[in-house]
Amino acid sequence: MDKNTAFQSFDDLSDAATCAPRLAALRAELKKRGLDGFVVPHSDEHQSEYLPARAERLAWLTAFTGSAGAAVVLRDKAAVFTDGRYTLQVRRQTDTALFEPRDLVAEGPQGWIPDHLPKGARLGYDPWLSTAHSVAHLKAAAEKAGGSLVGCDSNVIDAVWPDQPAAPASPVIIHPLALAGEASAAKRTRLAEGLKKNDTDAAVITLADSVCWLLNIRGSDVPHTPFVLAFAILNSDATVDLFLDKSRCGGDVIAHLGKGVRLHPPATFGAALDGLKEKKILADPASAAAAILDRLQRVGAAIRREPDPCQLPKACKNPGEIEGMRQAHIRDGAAMANFLCWLEGAAAGGALTEIAAAEALEGFRRATNQLRDLSFDSISGAGSNGAVVHYRVTRSTNRVIGKNDMFLIDSGAQYPDGTTDITRTVMVGVATAEMKDRFTRVLKGHIALATARFPDGTIGMQLDSLARRPLWEVGLDYDHGTGHGVGSYLAVHEGPQNISKRAVNQKLMPGMICSNEPGFYKEGAFGIRLENLVVVTEGRALPGGERKMMEFETITLAPLDLNLVEPGLLTQGERGWLNAYHARVRETIGPLVPDDVRAWLARATRAI
Amino acid sequence: MDKNTAFQSFDDLSDAATCAPRLAALRAELKKRGLDGFVVPHSDEHQSEYLPARAERLAWLTAFTGSAGAAVVLRDKAAVFTDGRYTLQVRRQTDTALFEPRDLVAEGPQGWIPDHLPKGARLGYDPWLSTAHSVAHLKAAAEKAGGSLVGCDSNVIDAVWPDQPAAPASPVIIHPLALAGEASAAKRTRLAEGLKKNDTDAAVITLADSVCWLLNIRGSDVPHTPFVLAFAILNSDATVDLFLDKSRCGGDVIAHLGKGVRLHPPATFGAALDGLKEKKILADPASAAAAILDRLQRVGAAIRREPDPCQLPKACKNPGEIEGMRQAHIRDGAAMANFLCWLEGAAAGGALTEIAAAEALEGFRRATNQLRDLSFDSISGAGSNGAVVHYRVTRSTNRVIGKNDMFLIDSGAQYPDGTTDITRTVMVGVATAEMKDRFTRVLKGHIALATARFPDGTIGMQLDSLARRPLWEVGLDYDHGTGHGVGSYLAVHEGPQNISKRAVNQKLMPGMICSNEPGFYKEGAFGIRLENLVVVTEGRALPGGERKMMEFETITLAPLDLNLVEPGLLTQGERGWLNAYHARVRETIGPLVPDDVRAWLARATRAI
Repeated sequence: MDKNTAFQSFDDLSDAATCAPRLAALRAELKKRGLDGFVVPHSDEHQSEYLPARAERLAWLTAFTGSAGAAVVLRDKAAVFTDGRYTLQVRRQTDTALFEPRDLVAEGPQGWIPDHLPKGARLGYDPWLSTAHSVAHLKAAAEKAGGSLVGCDSNVIDAVWPDQPAAPASPVIIHPLALAGEASAAKRTRLAEGLKKNDTDAAVITLADSVCWLLNIRGSDVPHTPFVLAFAILNSDATVDLFLDKSRCGGDVIAHLGKGVRLHPPATFGAALDGLKEKKILADPASAAAAILDRLQRVGAAIRREPDPCQLPKACKNPGEIEGMRQAHIRDGAAMANFLCWLEGAAAGGALTEIAAAEALEGFRRATNQLRDLSFDSISGAGSNGAVVHYRVTRSTNRVIGKNDMFLIDSGAQYPDGTTDITRTVMVGVATAEMKDRFTRVLKGHIALATARFPDGTIGMQLDSLARRPLWEVGLDYDHGTGHGVGSYLAVHEGPQNISKRAVNQKLMPGMICSNEPGFYKEGAFGIRLENLVVVTEGRALPGGERKMMEFETITLAPLDLNLVEPGLLTQGERGWLNAYHARVRETIGPLVPDDVRAWLARATRAI
Repeated sequence: MDKNTAFQSFDDLSDAATCAPRLAALRAELKKRGLDGFVVPHSDEHQSEYLPARAERLAWLTAFTGSAGAAVVLRDKAAVFTDGRYTLQVRRQTDTALFEPRDLVAEGPQGWIPDHLPKGARLGYDPWLSTAHSVAHLKAAAEKAGGSLVGCDSNVIDAVWPDQPAAPASPVIIHPLALAGEASAAKRTRLAEGLKKNDTDAAVITLADSVCWLLNIRGSDVPHTPFVLAFAILNSDATVDLFLDKSRCGGDVIAHLGKGVRLHPPATFGAALDGLKEKKILADPASAAAAILDRLQRVGAAIRREPDPCQLPKACKNPGEIEGMRQAHIRDGAAMANFLCWLEGAAAGGALTEIAAAEALEGFRRATNQLRDLSFDSISGAGSNGAVVHYRVTRSTNRVIGKNDMFLIDSGAQYPDGTTDITRTVMVGVATAEMKDRFTRVLKGHIALATARFPDGTIGMQLDSLARRPLWEVGLDYDHGTGHGVGSYLAVHEGPQNISKRAVNQKLMPGMICSNEPGFYKEGAFGIRLENLVVVTEGRALPGGERKMMEFETITLAPLDLNLVEPGLLTQGERGWLNAYHARVRETIGPLVPDDVRAWLARATRAI
């Protein structure tokens, strides 16, 4: 495989030795600005999950490279906050003599600041990197300490980061109508109707996936997600003001956007907000930067604080998008079959590494000639590494997939017609009775969710327990959600729906795509996760049925390892589901793979 | 049975002919007071579920006797609001020429007022009968219409209701320590610690069951619930100011209350609130009357708006209370066995009425010599009446339990050691295949909940779907919650926990008692509900189990009708649960019933 074109790097990305000089530089700059501290969140102006290199300020400062966290730097102390996933990683990566690791969830900056900010101190923050909600928490914390929270006109880290990458400016590409399923003009008209109905003049759109969905454009501004990072204002006449450098758009893109979309230099966005004075403006307090709401308020706009109007229509995929997702999953299923067949042989010797496995899978996906990116860094974990839920394999953690190891691989691809996300857990060697019991319980939960039929109005939390029940029965559970939304050649994690223990007030609606991924993790020993994507569909009418019911259609197609199934634990119905699913995998994927893989697939999907 | 001592009346309680003169009298009084309208909620000063006769203002005015509703009277029009349960009943009871029936949930007074209140009109309300939350809604509605909402010093209906019953003043009785499980002084000290920890000077306790629980007292101020209606102020020194006529307390009660409880005339409660000026006071905005919060605010108290501090400790029953509940359910189970055996014979002729069945059941409970009241009016519904979820049988709706009718009876008792609530559905004659299928699915849901094991932190909504799933599978559902909290010789419905489609953010904790009552209703044909009470317990440690798990212990003991069970639909585990439950019923209840009932019980609980 050509390393230069790989979408995943396994290098250790940071060095604790950089912490001391960078922290010193930051403190000098704070002094110059008359500040006593600064808050460094893990975010960009669009509250993206994957940040452009320019926005990796937390990693630059603390050397901690996890996907969530924050730091607070004061004159004589500093803390870095991470959640339970990163407790070990942060201690390995940062200089703990300089940054005290603290709990992001139980404490967070707002819990730490009152005890550590000196009285009268001025704590700076960047209003473009935080929502109004989190700023309110920071402000209360600073005031509790007798200090004050001060918004900075420019980011303090940017001033001391000499080789900070430039803002991303990848070429904008058109997301074709055949794949988008609905023209941008039609989407804009539909949403503008909603604005007019509520006497709203415009909506400020700050989420990158909303902008890309609304305008049927894609780009490569951030890793793993085909985002164009840009702000937009959707007006009630269905036109859009888009703040994006014209140089990024070819003539075809300009033509695609059409007259209804006016391009403006990004730097003019603030002034455009000022122009909304005395208008009624929708802005989403959950995702818009505090700077935006502050500015609208200052000029006297009437702010309607409501969810981004693109979110729900984007989540409910149209028939064109669903068909694209189906095709992407057939292609991805063939790559997975090639990989799993190869893995069986390659791992048998007991010398295959986690990195080699992840690289091979990327290779099989690349061979489809349709791979635009991975949808996230593959989680490739053998034995005890499989028990680390958000494991990221690097050269220093890389281990061999040993004989009698369970191996968990959670991965996904970005194809032009769809985004995939699949986890398989396979046995190398002979499984113990405990492994089979746990795997089969996870499988029973997976099947319970896959076969759920539920009335209109049901939210994900109501279904989450169906997936956990077989584990609950024996006193076990897993500490992550069961399902997240997935975009259509967009973000692999998207809202607003969710299947988890958290009550998210969003009913599951036809066209929504969710993951179905129960798991079980035995610390220090092994990890199991079985993940397919499903589409919410209107249920078939049933004889005697009275209610409008929803169902899930499973679109991920790859074998589940029968070596880990304990058939005696399955009900007849569960066994029927497994055999029917495997028959569908065999019939759909079989014609797309070489003869040897087809023979392997026939064995791997045999009826039990 | 002696009709004079019956706890349930089957009379039609109201007469539409009274509406016209009463409405006219109310309007004359409004004119005198310079008001253009008045809001009449279904509530008392304590937001009780069952109202004392004096507070039945809505029924007096509109002749509508349902358990939830409201009316708004304007100069030239009036509306009565009810929820879906009472759509038919309200039209039967009220004078619809005077009171337009409207939907309480979709519209409510706050939806109706903006369209009907004239500009400049003054709409009156009684701040003692509404929470601050609902007053805020009414105020916004009145102002939207260009009118204003005006708090009244005295209730306008009281001024025109000549024979309005007096405020209830039943003798206070002591709830003995053996049944309460914890001395009042210990409860007060425990709660006072919580107040001190939050720098709070006192808590205003307005819910009747909180006052009764805190002081270990009971009474009979309202039907079906052994309440003493009184306000109390719990101080952070663990003393209580109780606003209750001394004449209601015998010497033993005075001694029981002790020095830590100061009795004050009820009329001095308002002045006592004034005395809390500049103190930090806890009051529950979800249940305290707006008048209380207004008054505290006016005198400058710092109000901590938080849940009533008695609610959660009251919900988590102590071992003494749980043992009392178990004993009450054994006693009640014997009464149910006597009743169900009697019913089989009495209904066989096809001439038994719903009322006669309900009276017989009350008789069997009365024969225990421990019955203090029914815990609610029994729902006794044959055939299509069984499909009316909140059916109340009266002389005019009473029907015969016909041959080949399903019969549903939902009932409960108040015993000194516990409150019961049980629903059984039995077949008179031969069940159809559809009836058996539906009954068995409801049973499967009931068993799924009864056998649920779940991790600490789980809320009721997460378990609700387990009970619905067997119906969802065939496109069916039911439109009520699956479980409500139950008090210990207190209210048959109590919070804060709940098992339903609504997300109530309260985890299920050891000692909480809930109903488990899935159902299915075929309109115009039959109704099924199977209800047992369960106690949340800490789960047994399981081999290999890792988490702290909770389980339910079923405490209701009465046969489930095997004539309605389709064994082929049950899994082996479900069949095992049913047989084990029936064996437990037989062994526990058998020794307490006469020989003929014991013989019947043996048949009714046979293993299948």
